[in-house]
Amino acid sequence: MSDKPYLTGRTYLFKISKGDDLLAALEDFCVENQIKCGLVSGIGATISCNYGFYDQKKKTYIKHKYDGAAEILSLAGNVSLRDGRPMVHAHIMIETAEGKVSGGHLMGGTKVFASELFIQELVGEEKSRKLDKATGLFLWTNVKN
Amino acid sequence: MSDKPYLTGRTYLFKISKGDDLLAALEDFCVENQIKCGLVSGIGATISCNYGFYDQKKKTYIKHKYDGAAEILSLAGNVSLRDGRPMVHAHIMIETAEGKVSGGHLMGGTKVFASELFIQELVGEEKSRKLDKATGLFLWTNVKN
Amino acid sequence: MSDKPYLTGRTYLFKISKGDDLLAALEDFCVENQIKCGLVSGIGATISCNYGFYDQKKKTYIKHKYDGAAEILSLAGNVSLRDGRPMVHAHIMIETAEGKVSGGHLMGGTKVFASELFIQELVGEEKSRKLDKATGLFLWTNVKN
Repeated sequence: MSDKPYLTGRTYLFKISKGDDLLAALEDFCVENQIKCGLVSGIGATISCNYGFYDQKKKTYIKHKYDGAAEILSLAGNVSLRDGRPMVHAHIMIETAEGKVSGGHLMGGTKVFASELFIQELVGEEKSRKLDKATGLFLWTNVKN
Repeated sequence: MSDKPYLTGRTYLFKISKGDDLLAALEDFCVENQIKCGLVSGIGATISCNYGFYDQKKKTYIKHKYDGAAEILSLAGNVSLRDGRPMVHAHIMIETAEGKVSGGHLMGGTKVFASELFIQELVGEEKSRKLDKATGLFLWTNVKN
Repeated sequence: MSDKPYLTGRTYLFKISKGDDLLAALEDFCVENQIKCGLVSGIGATISCNYGFYDQKKKTYIKHKYDGAAEILSLAGNVSLRDGRPMVHAHIMIETAEGKVSGGHLMGGTKVFASELFIQELVGEEKSRKLDKATGLFLWTNVKN
Protein backbone atom coordinates (compact mmCIF):
# COMPACT_ATOMS: atom_id res chain seq x y z
CA MET A 1 0.00 0.00 0.00
CA SER A 2 1.29 3.44 -0.84
CA ASP A 3 -1.26 5.75 0.70
CA LYS A 4 -0.36 9.37 0.97
CA PRO A 5 -0.34 10.64 4.52
CA TYR A 6 -2.81 13.25 5.71
CA LEU A 7 -2.03 16.42 7.59
CA THR A 8 -3.83 16.85 10.87
CA GLY A 9 -6.23 19.75 10.54
CA ARG A 10 -8.57 21.25 13.08
CA THR A 11 -9.17 19.38 16.33
CA TYR A 12 -12.41 19.52 18.29
CA LEU A 13 -13.47 18.39 21.74
CA PHE A 14 -17.06 19.19 22.56
CA LYS A 15 -20.15 17.99 24.31
CA ILE A 16 -23.62 17.46 22.99
CA SER A 17 -26.78 17.83 25.04
CA LYS A 18 -29.31 15.54 26.64
CA GLY A 19 -31.69 14.25 24.00
CA ASP A 20 -29.45 15.00 21.03
CA ASP A 21 -29.22 12.43 18.24
CA LEU A 22 -25.61 11.21 18.36
CA LEU A 23 -25.08 10.44 14.68
CA ALA A 24 -26.97 13.53 13.49
CA ALA A 25 -25.03 15.74 15.91
CA LEU A 26 -21.71 14.40 14.61
CA GLU A 27 -22.69 14.81 10.98
CA ASP A 28 -24.21 18.25 11.53
CA PHE A 29 -21.01 19.33 13.25
CA CYS A 30 -18.98 18.14 10.26
CA VAL A 31 -21.29 19.86 7.79
CA GLU A 32 -21.26 23.16 9.71
CA ASN A 33 -17.49 23.12 10.09
CA GLN A 34 -16.88 21.67 6.61
CA ILE A 35 -14.96 18.68 7.92
CA LYS A 36 -14.66 16.32 4.96
CA CYS A 37 -12.26 13.79 6.39
CA GLY A 38 -11.34 12.88 9.91
CA LEU A 39 -11.36 10.67 12.94
CA VAL A 40 -14.17 10.50 15.49
CA SER A 41 -14.31 9.17 19.04
CA GLY A 42 -16.27 9.74 22.20
CA ILE A 43 -17.76 8.55 25.46
CA GLY A 44 -20.95 9.29 27.36
CA ALA A 45 -24.29 7.68 28.06
CA THR A 46 -27.40 7.03 26.00
CA ILE A 47 -31.12 7.21 26.67
CA SER A 48 -31.79 4.99 23.67
CA CYS A 49 -29.43 3.42 21.17
CA ASN A 50 -29.84 2.21 17.58
CA TYR A 51 -27.12 0.09 16.05
CA GLY A 52 -26.71 -2.42 13.29
CA PHE A 53 -25.08 -5.77 12.71
CA TYR A 54 -24.06 -6.31 9.11
CA ASP A 55 -25.27 -9.59 7.64
CA GLN A 56 -22.33 -10.37 5.37
CA LYS A 57 -24.32 -12.86 3.28
CA LYS A 58 -27.57 -10.96 2.87
CA LYS A 59 -25.62 -7.67 2.57
CA THR A 60 -27.96 -5.76 4.81
CA TYR A 61 -27.89 -4.36 8.32
CA ILE A 62 -29.88 -6.10 11.02
CA LYS A 63 -31.14 -3.25 13.18
CA HIS A 64 -31.11 -3.34 16.97
CA LYS A 65 -32.63 -0.87 19.39
CA TYR A 66 -32.02 -0.56 23.10
CA ASP A 67 -34.44 1.71 24.93
CA GLY A 68 -33.11 2.54 28.34
CA ALA A 69 -30.14 4.03 30.10
CA ALA A 70 -26.74 2.77 28.97
CA GLU A 71 -23.10 3.78 29.22
CA ILE A 72 -21.22 4.40 25.97
CA LEU A 73 -18.17 2.22 26.56
CA SER A 74 -16.67 3.14 23.24
CA LEU A 75 -17.48 5.17 20.15
CA ALA A 76 -14.99 5.14 17.31
CA GLY A 77 -15.11 5.95 13.63
CA ASN A 78 -14.29 8.31 10.84
CA VAL A 79 -15.62 11.06 8.60
CA SER A 80 -15.51 10.94 4.83
CA LEU A 81 -17.74 11.92 1.92
CA ARG A 82 -20.77 10.22 0.47
CA ASP A 83 -22.50 11.98 -2.41
CA GLY A 84 -20.33 15.00 -1.59
CA ARG A 85 -21.65 15.31 1.97
CA PRO A 86 -19.71 14.52 5.19
CA MET A 87 -20.74 11.10 6.46
CA VAL A 88 -19.77 9.65 9.82
CA HIS A 89 -19.13 5.92 9.98
CA ALA A 90 -18.82 4.88 13.60
CA HIS A 91 -19.22 1.84 15.80
CA ILE A 92 -20.65 2.16 19.28
CA MET A 93 -20.59 -0.14 22.26
CA ILE A 94 -22.92 0.24 25.21
CA GLU A 95 -23.54 -1.42 28.55
CA THR A 96 -27.01 -1.51 30.02
CA ALA A 97 -28.05 -1.31 33.68
CA GLU A 98 -28.34 -5.10 33.66
CA GLY A 99 -24.70 -5.38 32.63
CA LYS A 100 -25.31 -6.46 29.05
CA VAL A 101 -22.69 -5.21 26.60
CA SER A 102 -23.62 -4.85 22.96
CA GLY A 103 -23.16 -2.57 20.00
CA GLY A 104 -22.41 -2.23 16.34
CA HIS A 105 -22.79 0.23 13.48
CA LEU A 106 -24.10 3.51 14.93
CA MET A 107 -27.47 4.45 13.46
CA GLY A 108 -29.65 7.54 13.55
CA GLY A 109 -32.09 7.90 16.41
CA THR A 110 -29.55 7.20 19.17
CA LYS A 111 -30.31 9.74 21.90
CA VAL A 112 -27.64 10.73 24.38
CA PHE A 113 -28.00 11.45 28.08
CA ALA A 114 -24.63 13.21 27.84
CA SER A 115 -21.70 12.78 25.49
CA GLU A 116 -18.20 14.15 25.02
CA LEU A 117 -16.92 13.91 21.48
CA PHE A 118 -13.61 14.30 19.69
CA ILE A 119 -13.06 15.01 16.01
CA GLN A 120 -9.63 15.19 14.39
CA GLU A 121 -9.87 16.69 10.93
CA LEU A 122 -7.56 15.15 8.32
CA VAL A 123 -6.43 17.29 5.42
CA GLY A 124 -5.37 15.74 2.15
CA GLU A 125 -6.89 13.54 -0.50
CA GLU A 126 -10.64 13.39 0.08
CA LYS A 127 -12.18 9.99 0.60
CA SER A 128 -15.49 9.24 -1.09
CA ARG A 129 -17.74 6.26 -0.50
CA LYS A 130 -19.23 4.26 -3.33
CA LEU A 131 -21.09 0.99 -3.33
CA ASP A 132 -18.65 -1.93 -3.28
CA LYS A 133 -20.29 -4.93 -4.90
CA ALA A 134 -18.13 -7.54 -3.16
CA THR A 135 -19.33 -6.49 0.29
CA GLY A 136 -22.50 -4.49 -0.35
CA LEU A 137 -20.97 -1.68 1.72
CA PHE A 138 -20.22 1.90 0.77
CA LEU A 139 -16.42 1.85 0.86
CA TRP A 140 -13.70 4.30 -0.11
CA THR A 141 -13.00 4.05 -3.78
CA ASN A 142 -9.68 5.87 -4.08
CA VAL A 143 -7.39 3.97 -6.34
CA LYS A 144 -4.45 3.59 -4.03
CA ASN A 145 -6.14 1.78 -1.17
CA MET B 1 -22.38 24.55 17.18
CA SER B 2 -19.51 26.91 16.59
CA ASP B 3 -16.75 25.50 18.75
CA LYS B 4 -13.30 26.85 18.22
CA PRO B 5 -10.83 24.21 17.19
CA TYR B 6 -7.92 23.22 19.40
CA LEU B 7 -4.30 22.96 18.41
CA THR B 8 -2.69 19.61 19.06
CA GLY B 9 -0.07 20.08 21.74
CA ARG B 10 2.29 17.56 23.27
CA THR B 11 1.77 13.88 22.53
CA TYR B 12 2.66 11.09 24.94
CA LEU B 13 2.88 7.33 24.65
CA PHE B 14 4.01 5.64 27.84
CA LYS B 15 3.56 2.61 30.02
CA ILE B 16 2.65 2.36 33.65
CA SER B 17 3.80 -0.40 35.97
CA LYS B 18 2.29 -3.46 37.54
CA GLY B 19 0.16 -2.45 40.50
CA ASP B 20 -0.26 1.19 39.47
CA ASP B 21 -3.68 2.79 39.89
CA LEU B 22 -4.82 3.52 36.33
CA LEU B 23 -6.90 6.64 36.98
CA ALA B 24 -4.44 8.09 39.48
CA ALA B 25 -1.53 7.44 37.11
CA LEU B 26 -3.29 9.26 34.27
CA GLU B 27 -4.23 12.22 36.44
CA ASP B 28 -0.79 12.40 38.09
CA PHE B 29 0.79 12.40 34.63
CA CYS B 30 -1.44 15.30 33.60
CA VAL B 31 -0.71 17.24 36.77
CA GLU B 32 3.06 16.73 36.49
CA ASN B 33 3.08 17.70 32.83
CA GLN B 34 0.47 20.45 33.23
CA ILE B 35 -1.87 18.93 30.67
CA LYS B 36 -5.15 20.79 31.10
CA CYS B 37 -7.02 19.50 28.10
CA GLY B 38 -6.60 16.45 25.94
CA LEU B 39 -7.55 13.04 24.71
CA VAL B 40 -6.73 9.78 26.49
CA SER B 41 -6.67 6.18 25.30
CA GLY B 42 -4.94 2.93 26.15
CA ILE B 43 -4.84 -0.83 26.32
CA GLY B 44 -3.40 -3.34 28.78
CA ALA B 45 -4.59 -5.68 31.48
CA THR B 46 -5.89 -5.20 35.00
CA ILE B 47 -5.41 -7.03 38.28
CA SER B 48 -8.56 -5.42 39.66
CA CYS B 49 -10.98 -2.98 38.09
CA ASN B 50 -13.41 -0.41 39.54
CA TYR B 51 -15.98 1.12 37.26
CA GLY B 52 -19.34 2.81 37.51
CA PHE B 53 -22.69 2.72 35.80
CA TYR B 54 -24.55 6.03 35.98
CA ASP B 55 -28.11 5.73 37.20
CA GLN B 56 -29.71 8.47 35.12
CA LYS B 57 -32.76 8.72 37.38
CA LYS B 58 -31.09 8.62 40.79
CA LYS B 59 -28.19 10.68 39.42
CA THR B 60 -25.55 8.59 41.10
CA TYR B 61 -22.94 6.04 40.04
CA ILE B 62 -23.55 2.40 40.81
CA LYS B 63 -20.09 1.06 41.59
CA HIS B 64 -18.79 -2.25 40.31
CA LYS B 65 -15.58 -4.03 41.20
CA TYR B 66 -13.94 -6.94 39.45
CA ASP B 67 -11.12 -8.60 41.36
CA GLY B 68 -9.12 -10.80 39.07
CA ALA B 69 -7.15 -10.78 35.87
CA ALA B 70 -8.78 -9.04 32.93
CA GLU B 71 -7.81 -7.63 29.54
CA ILE B 72 -8.44 -3.94 28.92
CA LEU B 73 -10.31 -4.13 25.62
CA SER B 74 -10.72 -0.39 25.42
CA LEU B 75 -9.93 2.72 27.43
CA ALA B 76 -11.04 6.06 26.05
CA GLY B 77 -11.63 9.48 27.45
CA ASN B 78 -10.47 13.02 27.90
CA VAL B 79 -8.70 15.46 30.18
CA SER B 80 -10.20 18.75 31.33
CA LEU B 81 -10.30 20.83 34.48
CA ARG B 82 -12.38 20.43 37.61
CA ASP B 83 -11.76 22.94 40.37
CA GLY B 84 -8.68 24.03 38.44
CA ARG B 85 -7.07 20.59 38.50
CA PRO B 86 -6.66 18.20 35.54
CA MET B 87 -9.36 15.54 35.69
CA VAL B 88 -9.49 12.45 33.53
CA HIS B 89 -12.91 11.24 32.44
CA ALA B 90 -12.57 7.84 30.83
CA HIS B 91 -14.60 4.73 30.13
CA ILE B 92 -13.00 1.30 30.36
CA MET B 93 -14.05 -2.07 29.06
CA ILE B 94 -12.57 -5.32 30.30
CA GLU B 95 -12.89 -9.01 29.58
CA THR B 96 -12.37 -11.54 32.33
CA ALA B 97 -10.83 -15.00 32.13
CA GLU B 98 -14.35 -16.41 31.98
CA GLY B 99 -15.06 -14.34 28.89
CA LYS B 100 -17.37 -11.82 30.52
CA VAL B 101 -17.15 -8.34 29.02
CA SER B 102 -18.13 -5.36 31.14
CA GLY B 103 -17.09 -1.83 31.94
CA GLY B 104 -18.12 1.73 32.48
CA HIS B 105 -16.88 4.93 34.06
CA LEU B 106 -13.27 4.35 35.18
CA MET B 107 -12.88 4.77 38.94
CA GLY B 108 -9.94 5.00 41.31
CA GLY B 109 -8.52 1.79 42.68
CA THR B 110 -8.20 0.05 39.31
CA LYS B 111 -4.82 -1.71 39.41
CA VAL B 112 -3.04 -2.60 36.19
CA PHE B 113 -1.00 -5.67 35.37
CA ALA B 114 0.48 -3.67 32.50
CA SER B 115 -0.83 -0.75 30.49
CA GLU B 116 0.22 1.35 27.52
CA LEU B 117 -1.32 4.80 27.46
CA PHE B 118 -1.67 7.64 24.99
CA ILE B 119 -2.36 11.29 25.78
CA GLN B 120 -2.84 13.96 23.13
CA GLU B 121 -2.71 17.40 24.66
CA LEU B 122 -5.13 19.94 23.19
CA VAL B 123 -4.20 23.60 23.34
CA GLY B 124 -6.88 26.28 23.26
CA GLU B 125 -9.85 27.28 25.33
CA GLU B 126 -9.72 25.42 28.63
CA LYS B 127 -12.68 23.25 29.49
CA SER B 128 -13.94 23.30 33.08
CA ARG B 129 -16.46 20.97 34.65
CA LYS B 130 -19.32 22.23 36.77
CA LEU B 131 -22.35 20.44 38.13
CA ASP B 132 -25.08 20.22 35.50
CA LYS B 133 -28.44 20.01 37.24
CA ALA B 134 -30.26 18.35 34.35
CA THR B 135 -28.01 15.29 34.44
CA GLY B 136 -26.32 15.44 37.84
CA LEU B 137 -22.98 15.15 36.04
CA PHE B 138 -20.01 17.48 36.06
CA LEU B 139 -20.07 18.72 32.47
CA TRP B 140 -18.21 21.37 30.51
CA THR B 141 -19.79 24.73 31.06
CA ASN B 142 -18.24 26.75 28.26
CA VAL B 143 -20.87 28.87 26.62
CA LYS B 144 -20.40 27.73 23.08
CA ASN B 145 -20.99 24.04 23.56
CA MET C 1 7.08 10.35 35.23
CA SER C 2 9.04 12.66 32.99
CA ASP C 3 8.46 11.25 29.54
CA LYS C 4 9.48 13.38 26.64
CA PRO C 5 6.59 14.23 24.36
CA TYR C 6 6.43 12.99 20.78
CA LEU C 7 5.77 15.03 17.70
CA THR C 8 2.87 13.88 15.58
CA GLY C 9 4.24 12.62 12.29
CA ARG C 10 2.43 11.26 9.28
CA THR C 11 -1.26 10.43 9.60
CA TYR C 12 -2.99 7.66 7.64
CA LEU C 13 -6.60 6.68 7.11
CA PHE C 14 -7.02 3.70 4.81
CA LYS C 15 -9.04 0.62 4.16
CA ILE C 16 -7.93 -2.96 3.79
CA SER C 17 -9.67 -5.53 1.63
CA LYS C 18 -11.92 -8.50 2.17
CA GLY C 19 -9.86 -11.47 3.29
CA ASP C 20 -6.84 -9.45 4.46
CA ASP C 21 -5.14 -10.45 7.70
CA LEU C 22 -5.75 -7.50 10.02
CA LEU C 23 -2.58 -7.70 12.12
CA ALA C 24 -0.36 -8.51 9.14
CA ALA C 25 -1.87 -5.66 7.13
CA LEU C 26 -1.19 -3.18 9.92
CA GLU C 27 2.38 -4.37 10.42
CA ASP C 28 3.10 -4.53 6.68
CA PHE C 29 1.80 -0.97 6.35
CA CYS C 30 4.16 0.16 9.11
CA VAL C 31 7.11 -1.67 7.59
CA GLU C 32 6.47 -0.29 4.10
CA ASN C 33 6.05 3.24 5.39
CA GLN C 34 8.78 2.94 8.02
CA ILE C 35 6.48 3.82 10.89
CA LYS C 36 8.41 2.95 14.03
CA CYS C 37 6.14 4.46 16.64
CA GLY C 38 2.51 5.41 16.59
CA LEU C 39 -1.09 4.95 17.51
CA VAL C 40 -3.50 2.55 15.78
CA SER C 41 -7.28 2.37 15.71
CA GLY C 42 -10.02 1.12 13.45
CA ILE C 43 -13.44 -0.32 12.87
CA GLY C 44 -14.92 -2.81 10.43
CA ALA C 45 -16.07 -6.39 10.38
CA THR C 46 -14.33 -9.75 10.48
CA ILE C 47 -14.83 -13.07 8.74
CA SER C 48 -12.78 -14.82 11.42
CA CYS C 49 -11.04 -13.45 14.48
CA ASN C 50 -8.09 -14.67 16.57
CA TYR C 51 -7.45 -13.04 19.92
CA GLY C 52 -5.73 -13.85 23.17
CA PHE C 53 -6.40 -13.57 26.86
CA TYR C 54 -3.23 -13.22 28.90
CA ASP C 55 -2.99 -15.64 31.80
CA GLN C 56 -1.18 -13.44 34.30
CA LYS C 57 -0.06 -16.39 36.44
CA LYS C 58 1.05 -18.80 33.73
CA LYS C 59 2.43 -15.89 31.69
CA THR C 60 1.04 -17.14 28.44
CA TYR C 61 -1.76 -16.18 26.07
CA ILE C 62 -4.86 -18.34 25.96
CA LYS C 63 -5.86 -18.28 22.31
CA HIS C 64 -9.43 -17.84 21.13
CA LYS C 65 -10.81 -18.14 17.64
CA TYR C 66 -14.20 -17.04 16.36
CA ASP C 67 -15.07 -18.29 12.89
CA GLY C 68 -17.99 -16.38 11.52
CA ALA C 69 -19.18 -12.88 10.74
CA ALA C 70 -18.60 -10.30 13.44
CA GLU C 71 -18.56 -6.52 13.81
CA ILE C 72 -15.33 -4.92 15.03
CA LEU C 73 -16.70 -2.77 17.85
CA SER C 74 -13.29 -1.42 18.71
CA LEU C 75 -9.67 -1.83 17.67
CA ALA C 76 -7.06 0.15 19.55
CA GLY C 77 -3.35 -0.10 20.02
CA ASN C 78 0.09 1.16 19.18
CA VAL C 79 3.17 0.64 17.04
CA SER C 80 6.67 0.27 18.45
CA LEU C 81 9.77 -1.80 17.74
CA ARG C 82 10.57 -5.37 18.61
CA ASP C 83 13.92 -6.70 17.40
CA GLY C 84 14.17 -3.54 15.28
CA ARG C 85 10.97 -4.24 13.35
CA PRO C 86 7.66 -2.35 13.66
CA MET C 87 5.28 -4.35 15.85
CA VAL C 88 1.61 -3.59 16.34
CA HIS C 89 0.14 -4.26 19.77
CA ALA C 90 -3.61 -3.92 19.59
CA HIS C 91 -6.74 -5.12 21.37
CA ILE C 92 -9.85 -5.94 19.42
CA MET C 93 -13.45 -6.35 20.45
CA ILE C 94 -16.03 -8.05 18.29
CA GLU C 95 -19.74 -8.82 18.40
CA THR C 96 -21.09 -11.90 16.72
CA ALA C 97 -24.41 -12.39 14.95
CA GLU C 98 -25.73 -13.98 18.14
CA GLY C 99 -24.93 -10.81 20.07
CA LYS C 100 -21.95 -12.16 21.96
CA VAL C 101 -19.25 -9.57 22.66
CA SER C 102 -15.69 -10.73 23.21
CA GLY C 103 -12.14 -9.83 22.37
CA GLY C 104 -8.61 -9.43 23.57
CA HIS C 105 -5.06 -9.25 22.23
CA LEU C 106 -5.26 -9.17 18.42
CA MET C 107 -3.49 -12.15 16.85
CA GLY C 108 -2.45 -13.10 13.34
CA GLY C 109 -4.97 -14.92 11.20
CA THR C 110 -7.83 -12.48 11.81
CA LYS C 111 -9.49 -11.99 8.41
CA VAL C 112 -11.52 -8.88 7.72
CA PHE C 113 -14.72 -8.53 5.72
CA ALA C 114 -13.93 -4.82 5.51
CA SER C 115 -11.91 -2.52 7.73
CA GLU C 116 -11.07 1.18 7.98
CA LEU C 117 -7.87 1.88 9.82
CA PHE C 118 -6.11 4.89 11.29
CA ILE C 119 -2.43 5.23 12.09
CA GLN C 120 -0.90 8.30 13.71
CA GLU C 121 2.87 8.22 13.49
CA LEU C 122 4.72 9.53 16.54
CA VAL C 123 8.17 11.00 16.04
CA GLY C 124 10.67 11.06 18.88
CA GLU C 125 12.41 8.58 21.10
CA GLU C 126 11.88 5.11 19.66
CA LYS C 127 10.24 2.56 21.90
CA SER C 128 11.61 -0.98 21.90
CA ARG C 129 10.05 -4.04 23.48
CA LYS C 130 12.06 -6.45 25.60
CA LEU C 131 10.93 -9.32 27.77
CA ASP C 132 9.81 -8.05 31.18
CA LYS C 133 10.32 -10.83 33.72
CA ALA C 134 7.74 -9.52 36.20
CA THR C 135 4.89 -9.88 33.72
CA GLY C 136 6.24 -12.19 31.02
CA LEU C 137 5.26 -9.57 28.46
CA PHE C 138 7.38 -7.72 25.93
CA LEU C 139 7.22 -4.19 27.33
CA TRP C 140 8.94 -0.91 26.52
CA THR C 141 12.30 -0.77 28.21
CA ASN C 142 13.15 2.90 27.91
CA VAL C 143 14.62 4.15 31.14
CA LYS C 144 12.25 7.01 31.75
CA ASN C 145 8.98 5.12 31.79
